Amino acid sequence: MWATMSMVGDTGYARMTVEAIASRAGVGKQTIYRWWPRGKAALVLDALAENVATGPAALPDSGDLEADLRTVVRATVAEFADPKLSATTRALTVETLADDDLAAQVRDRLLRPQLDAVRDRLEAARDAGHVRAGADLDHAVESIFGPIFHRWLLRTGPLTDEYAEGLLQHVMAALR
Amino acid sequence: MWATMSMVGDTGYARMTVEAIASRAGVGKQTIYRWWPRGKAALVLDALAENVATGPAALPDSGDLEADLRTVVRATVAEFADPKLSATTRALTVETLADDDLAAQVRDRLLRPQLDAVRDRLEAARDAGHVRAGADLDHAVESIFGPIFHRWLLRTGPLTDEYAEGLLQHVMAALR
Repeated sequence: MWATMSMVGDTGYARMTVEAIASRAGVGKQTIYRWWPRGKAALVLDALAENVATGPAALPDSGDLEADLRTVVRATVAEFADPKLSATTRALTVETLADDDLAAQVRDRLLRPQLDAVRDRLEAARDAGHVRAGADLDHAVESIFGPIFHRWLLRTGPLTDEYAEGLLQHVMAALR
Repeated sequence: MWATMSMVGDTGYARMTVEAIASRAGVGKQTIYRWWPRGKAALVLDALAENVATGPAALPDSGDLEADLRTVVRATVAEFADPKLSATTRALTVETLADDDLAAQVRDRLLRPQLDAVRDRLEAARDAGHVRAGADLDHAVESIFGPIFHRWLLRTGPLTDEYAEGLLQHVMAALR
């Protein structure tokens, strides 16, 4: 998986080939296709999913919801603003639009863990009385990631720290 | 344009050909390519943009912001839930991911007029004292369309009237 991720970073998804990944990993091309018959989309998904699985499972809980969400919102906006990561995500998005099974895997292995981590933090905040009792936490989670994704994919505006802060304030207004 | 839209509806975007559109419109294939050298993506974009341009430019203003937004949210969710419209939008989204110029046209001709119409209605509501003074209206607009688009594209949940109502309540909580 290291060979895949280092190659995505160096070469970019579009110019990356299964041959080159195999060569960097020191195995034959047939070995790659035996394990990842769908080729590079499946390889990149596995590499990204491994990152998610080995990353922190939960959000930090400093007791200050706004500060903890600021970390998530800023990091997410910065990821989508990064040209290399953005190109990889864009390529993977195209492949998911043509392949329902890949789409389900991206959703369940990449996306869901991140949405659930934010939902858990919001639930803790509600238990601590920092979120109004009637707030719907699923809608709250989507009110964070939905606008970022929409802005990134449809390029309706800049993805900056200033944008992240404005989004955070809008999200908090619905939660208090 | 009527030939294009009736064909998208009958045949679906994926199986639609420029030849068949030309035949339905009663012109030669070369005529289509002369005016729309990019082929069917450009044709569908023009047909959809014409719909937007001839549709109502402004949202209704009944004086009741929640009721007016409910109409928009329900209609948007229903559009994305419609299998034929969804397939067309999905196909156009794939093409925009590979073509920056087409992406800019989709944004400016299809998307922007709809976002602006909602923003204008929110501005009127703020002037009438129905929206808190500090609310950021651009974030408010994206908090409506972003989550719907995210849920539709990544298939994270159902697109139902119940979902539309929950989203509306979350959006209103940030505005009051």
